[in-house]
Amino acid sequence: MRTVIDLNADAGESFGRWRLGDDARLIPLVTSVNIACGWHAGDPATMSRSVELARDGGTAIGAHPGLPDLTGFGRRAMALSPAEAAQACLYQFGALQAIAAHHGLTLAHVKPHGALYGLTIKDAAVAEAVVEAFATAAPGVRVVLLAGPVSERLAERGFPVVREAFADLDYDNAGHIIIEPDPKPKPPDACADQAEAVLRGEVRSVEGNPVQVDADTICLHGDRSNAVEIAEAIRGRFASAGVRLAPMTEVADARV
Amino acid sequence: MRTVIDLNADAGESFGRWRLGDDARLIPLVTSVNIACGWHAGDPATMSRSVELARDGGTAIGAHPGLPDLTGFGRRAMALSPAEAAQACLYQFGALQAIAAHHGLTLAHVKPHGALYGLTIKDAAVAEAVVEAFATAAPGVRVVLLAGPVSERLAERGFPVVREAFADLDYDNAGHIIIEPDPKPKPPDACADQAEAVLRGEVRSVEGNPVQVDADTICLHGDRSNAVEIAEAIRGRFASAGVRLAPMTEVADARV
Amino acid sequence: MRTVIDLNADAGESFGRWRLGDDARLIPLVTSVNIACGWHAGDPATMSRSVELARDGGTAIGAHPGLPDLTGFGRRAMALSPAEAAQACLYQFGALQAIAAHHGLTLAHVKPHGALYGLTIKDAAVAEAVVEAFATAAPGVRVVLLAGPVSERLAERGFPVVREAFADLDYDNAGHIIIEPDPKPKPPDACADQAEAVLRGEVRSVEGNPVQVDADTICLHGDRSNAVEIAEAIRGRFASAGVRLAPMTEVADARV
Amino acid sequence: MRTVIDLNADAGESFGRWRLGDDARLIPLVTSVNIACGWHAGDPATMSRSVELARDGGTAIGAHPGLPDLTGFGRRAMALSPAEAAQACLYQFGALQAIAAHHGLTLAHVKPHGALYGLTIKDAAVAEAVVEAFATAAPGVRVVLLAGPVSERLAERGFPVVREAFADLDYDNAGHIIIEPDPKPKPPDACADQAEAVLRGEVRSVEGNPVQVDADTICLHGDRSNAVEIAEAIRGRFASAGVRLAPMTEVADARV
Repeated sequence: MRTVIDLNADAGESFGRWRLGDDARLIPLVTSVNIACGWHAGDPATMSRSVELARDGGTAIGAHPGLPDLTGFGRRAMALSPAEAAQACLYQFGALQAIAAHHGLTLAHVKPHGALYGLTIKDAAVAEAVVEAFATAAPGVRVVLLAGPVSERLAERGFPVVREAFADLDYDNAGHIIIEPDPKPKPPDACADQAEAVLRGEVRSVEGNPVQVDADTICLHGDRSNAVEIAEAIRGRFASAGVRLAPMTEVADARV
Repeated sequence: MRTVIDLNADAGESFGRWRLGDDARLIPLVTSVNIACGWHAGDPATMSRSVELARDGGTAIGAHPGLPDLTGFGRRAMALSPAEAAQACLYQFGALQAIAAHHGLTLAHVKPHGALYGLTIKDAAVAEAVVEAFATAAPGVRVVLLAGPVSERLAERGFPVVREAFADLDYDNAGHIIIEPDPKPKPPDACADQAEAVLRGEVRSVEGNPVQVDADTICLHGDRSNAVEIAEAIRGRFASAGVRLAPMTEVADARV
Repeated sequence: MRTVIDLNADAGESFGRWRLGDDARLIPLVTSVNIACGWHAGDPATMSRSVELARDGGTAIGAHPGLPDLTGFGRRAMALSPAEAAQACLYQFGALQAIAAHHGLTLAHVKPHGALYGLTIKDAAVAEAVVEAFATAAPGVRVVLLAGPVSERLAERGFPVVREAFADLDYDNAGHIIIEPDPKPKPPDACADQAEAVLRGEVRSVEGNPVQVDADTICLHGDRSNAVEIAEAIRGRFASAGVRLAPMTEVADARV
Repeated sequence: MRTVIDLNADAGESFGRWRLGDDARLIPLVTSVNIACGWHAGDPATMSRSVELARDGGTAIGAHPGLPDLTGFGRRAMALSPAEAAQACLYQFGALQAIAAHHGLTLAHVKPHGALYGLTIKDAAVAEAVVEAFATAAPGVRVVLLAGPVSERLAERGFPVVREAFADLDYDNAGHIIIEPDPKPKPPDACADQAEAVLRGEVRSVEGNPVQVDADTICLHGDRSNAVEIAEAIRGRFASAGVRLAPMTEVADARV
């Protein structure tokens, strides 16, 4: 069983006049935060506020690029080519990097959002285009992908990927996560159970079958209304179990 | 009379299915190119192509951030606060920087587009917010502003501004340029005349009065249908006059 | 003192994943509702839900077109030409009309939102272009404008305008309302006081001076967090005073 | 062999500063025009100009709603639910209807664009949601769908569909058209050949197999650079063959 892991959250998903998520409370509870970059959520002012919260909370930051679909919050599948997906990630990463630099910070990672994540983990050509783009454009930056065959193969080829598992999403038998368009509250204890299962390397699919996971980081979603309670439940469970939280880059480096 | 100056062009202003400007011919004719960053024109694929053209042509590149107004091509005035203007510039600059990095290039400058340029040169608080943001977030990067009192004061305070004049736009008596929503062809010779007038430090306003200009770079617009002919006319005139073209950073450095 | 008036609210201002306003409670409390149409807020699914709430609550519906500025919620001034403003209103009105028709309803009015409202009430050429466009394209539809000189003159020329006053916004000495980018809660009693002042035909500016108003309808904003309490306070006050609420078209027709 | 048919073109696909297609020459050459409505192309000013061209040319007009994807010109597949697809069509149809009404015109039909068309013709639930929405919201309006099993079944159930075939796109063996992201010029004669094949009720797939088509209208794309030449070739061929062109509603009515 793992004794050190990263806890990451998707945050910064307000947009203009609209508020979503309790970032001020959530961001300090995680060790890495994925900040929306304007295409599915987030705008420059929101991005700037999220960076400040992460800086104040000592949380490592990364970009959370999404599909160009504000109406659908980036959760509707869209057929981007590998090149389009890679450029979409670079564009949004760079936008956040410049805003972070204004606050004296540097991005540690990038993690596609929603249906762009789904596209990346299911289409090996997309995943390869994305990791290749970052290996060239931002050599020190890690790409977060679902723990599983696609990320495994890319890691073996030397690409700096971080393997991710989910505390608050269900898995199917193929080991894919089931994306909710509009996440409902989930029992914090059940999420903490699943987080512990990740530490042991095996979760249950919705059909009840075992799914192997070998993850450096565990994700929860900031737009779930009880995200803060879920984060606290996981932290409590990990504290009891003697599991230490650390930023994903530290965890992934240790693996090599 | 100046004997060395930069010639810059706004380019990369296609968008998705739509083409605008003859970038392949224009970019090699200038010493600096301002590449649209997605808000008023440009998309990641277009940005990537523009960067490649600049790399192949040996042209220095900068970001050309605009207002969030694709329909109006960023040429309709919009009341952004100084903070909003600065964040808009950072966001778009960073987006292009990441795409440029993928091609092994670094951005040398940033120049607001259209009505965002108009806002910056008329509102000293906006200009200050923009140059301050870049001084923090991207220390080596120069901010291009209209040669005139606003840029003069910021240069005196040590901010790395580049003073710009225009070959293909009219000036009013206040020394402001008159932005055309949809630029029509202009006689190349008249633009070359105005470029020479810039070298001498004085242009004529539309009312016929003298306007003093002390510029490091001369701009022309890639979305004017005869932009290539204008660039060639200016280059020819400068060659005859023994004026050397050099990237704006080199010209501006020499001034200090 | 007036004994019959319309109470209208801006609503339907959620967008995609983001919720704003308590439309389910607010819409039945007013006699007319202005539904956002997608440019500053609202999306087709949200528009459809808002129409259903109005149908169920027996509330008359109108379009609430805004500037093309989701990030700024249509509250940042933008320089649209009269023709652009009129076409923006027609476009959004028609979009909502088709969705309303799907639920068996017809739009009774149109009221520009935020900075587009500000542009319309301050620029007579814009106001004229808008009312002329609707007079041609949608003859039975009323255009809601601030009670004051601009709307007065258009009404005298026979255009079907509805004159509006505000319960929850401050007035300046020029009789213009002061638009808040991000409305804060206001004391319901103070709003009810101002609503009563409207019935008497005179409100106070923030400087303390009298401003004459001759209004057919009183507005409150659904994105103010205590909008429901304000609506209830106004209704209570009007009930005590024997003032009857009726849809704006009925009130405006009675005036003629 | 059919002796009367409609010829329709997708047009109005300029956007803001960008021009696409030669609408002034193309629109008078067809009997029905599908005008882009702002989501994949077109903006209110462009829509207004297209309506005027159709009015002047005596061409019947319809809405050409697309996916919310300006960057991809609505040609990248996107997973809209049946309800989302229907509302997207209603929204855009209504927007154009209001602008057409300003010019004294009424829309005769609606035809989804690009990947929204692809979604509609491949997913029977989407097609049903769209035709049901228009049957309720705009009873006299015809929905244009690919001639084939999906449109056949909806026509049998009494929905007012118009069956369409293509002169300038290839078919696959399943009878589906093959959408080009960026249409290249095609030999006008080959398109005229395919148009004549449509009149005979059978085209060839790219694999060389026969595909049965029973169509009321034949489409060509305005964003193909030689669209005007293709339209002229088809008109010439039809004139020689004694085939009469008539708006699609007349043709479809005659079928019943």
